[in-house]
Amino acid sequence: MYVILVYDIKEKRVAKMLKHCRKYLNWIQNSVFEGEITEVKLKELVAGARKFMDEEEDSVIIFKNRDQKWLDKQVVGVERMGTDNFL
Amino acid sequence: MYVILVYDIKEKRVAKMLKHCRKYLNWIQNSVFEGEITEVKLKELVAGARKFMDEEEDSVIIFKNRDQKWLDKQVVGVERMGTDNFL
Repeated sequence: MYVILVYDIKEKRVAKMLKHCRKYLNWIQNSVFEGEITEVKLKELVAGARKFMDEEEDSVIIFKNRDQKWLDKQVVGVERMGTDNFL
Repeated sequence: MYVILVYDIKEKRVAKMLKHCRKYLNWIQNSVFEGEITEVKLKELVAGARKFMDEEEDSVIIFKNRDQKWLDKQVVGVERMGTDNFL
């Protein structure tokens, strides 16, 4: 399964969330990740995130697609993919 | 066509980008939009955004899907959809 994950997290928890998501997906922009993941691994990702999220304040949205070939991606401006190596 | 649009824009241009994107798509999270849009309208959105973006600093990623039914959306934590009415 191909997913896009976006989060909106209070600043004090951002570093933790970033580190957590990068174990499972590719970081492509500030608070945006994408990648192939199994249903089991995605559950693990969400359960792990819930442990430190404040669900009254923070938000994570996951868009799931059965097949990546149905998605086409257009990037305008800076491509952030390269920054993945810097953290 | 169903799209997800995410942006990472320097703060001084964020308000402008938000206002611009909301003319075309639904605002669902901090810097995330989704919705049905035609190819022509999407080109208009991108051309409009390019007028005030700094393409050395700012980034917009658009994920395109032919058919929304292939996408499944999971929200963890706060649902921000309601905030759309406040601005």
